[in-house]
Amino acid sequence: MQIAIFLYDNFTALDCIGPYEVLSRLPAADVRFVSVDGGVVRADTRALAVATEYSIDQVTAPDLLLIPGGPGDEAAAADPRVREWVAKVHETTRWTTSVCTGSLILGAAGLLQGVDATSHWASYDRLRSYGANPVAERFVRVGKIITAAGVSAGIDMGLYLLAQEGGEDLAQAIQLAIEYDPQPPFDSGAPSKAPAHILELMTAYFAEARAS
Amino acid sequence: MQIAIFLYDNFTALDCIGPYEVLSRLPAADVRFVSVDGGVVRADTRALAVATEYSIDQVTAPDLLLIPGGPGDEAAAADPRVREWVAKVHETTRWTTSVCTGSLILGAAGLLQGVDATSHWASYDRLRSYGANPVAERFVRVGKIITAAGVSAGIDMGLYLLAQEGGEDLAQAIQLAIEYDPQPPFDSGAPSKAPAHILELMTAYFAEARAS
Repeated sequence: MQIAIFLYDNFTALDCIGPYEVLSRLPAADVRFVSVDGGVVRADTRALAVATEYSIDQVTAPDLLLIPGGPGDEAAAADPRVREWVAKVHETTRWTTSVCTGSLILGAAGLLQGVDATSHWASYDRLRSYGANPVAERFVRVGKIITAAGVSAGIDMGLYLLAQEGGEDLAQAIQLAIEYDPQPPFDSGAPSKAPAHILELMTAYFAEARAS
Repeated sequence: MQIAIFLYDNFTALDCIGPYEVLSRLPAADVRFVSVDGGVVRADTRALAVATEYSIDQVTAPDLLLIPGGPGDEAAAADPRVREWVAKVHETTRWTTSVCTGSLILGAAGLLQGVDATSHWASYDRLRSYGANPVAERFVRVGKIITAAGVSAGIDMGLYLLAQEGGEDLAQAIQLAIEYDPQPPFDSGAPSKAPAHILELMTAYFAEARAS
């Protein structure tokens, strides 16, 4: 199974490395990190540089497409080459997937019109602007399209996909291999759970980040 | 705060990207991906290539050292340059940390003699061979040394460290930012939770992987 992970300047690393770590364990997985031109792509912190080794021209028929989110989502979505490539490969994928604001790139490519989908909790309005119906779930599947919530949600989506492709035994085996027995020291991982002042702080933070 | 993430051939990506995603959000974090020679380093799947931009000679006094695990741990631990660098930088770190079998590299550098520590569940015997006392916890702190369990445990350790360095409000804010509200579709993430046949399968898998 060919898995294309599309990277762009200012992506968020865990968005893609979470599901990558799970899905790359699928027997016969052929994982390809792809960018518009192929070459080094920097994550949003600027500290992490990934050498993608495929350009979009070289990966035209992946079985699974995975698009991470990140502060660079708008710039990526504004590039017609990206939108056209995403729309084109989607025609023949088995799965078209996103994590976090990666769903906005799917939206910009025209894939989410009238479709239930999710994104980072602070970006539901942007998701709606592409015709999607935002749903506050860990991940949302509609046919072959799966959109996951913010950043860490890609791990959960990855395990679900692994079960679909390789069976539940494989998914459970990989969950054990990566010791995915989460024990967060706080319980602040969703707007419904975070203390009010933390939610207020981060809502303002994301609004400001988008305005700048 | 300077954060050195040491990469080596055949590291496991999520081991370091989990805590990186959390710790890089610390105000004034200066994250540096480091390898022996500086340059491109491949993860265990061979699909992911990270362009590290610092050699160990260029990073001599990080505040925080983070070492991921992976199938390449033994080769890394066998390299005297690695052992000497780890031992040397540990002298002046505020925190010396590992995820998964990265603790074996700390062990090889002589840092875990008589110390409670953890590692991937399938590697407790190797941890013991370095004089450590294996503990089946999500992460174990002894003074400034923190060792985390397998792969995904680094996210939990990262949030703990973030709270130590930046306060609980910051840690909760970042947990919300990365929507770390885990909802694994299965409950197989620890030896004590996985179905018996899955545990047996993966125990055999890791034994064989180490023998080859």
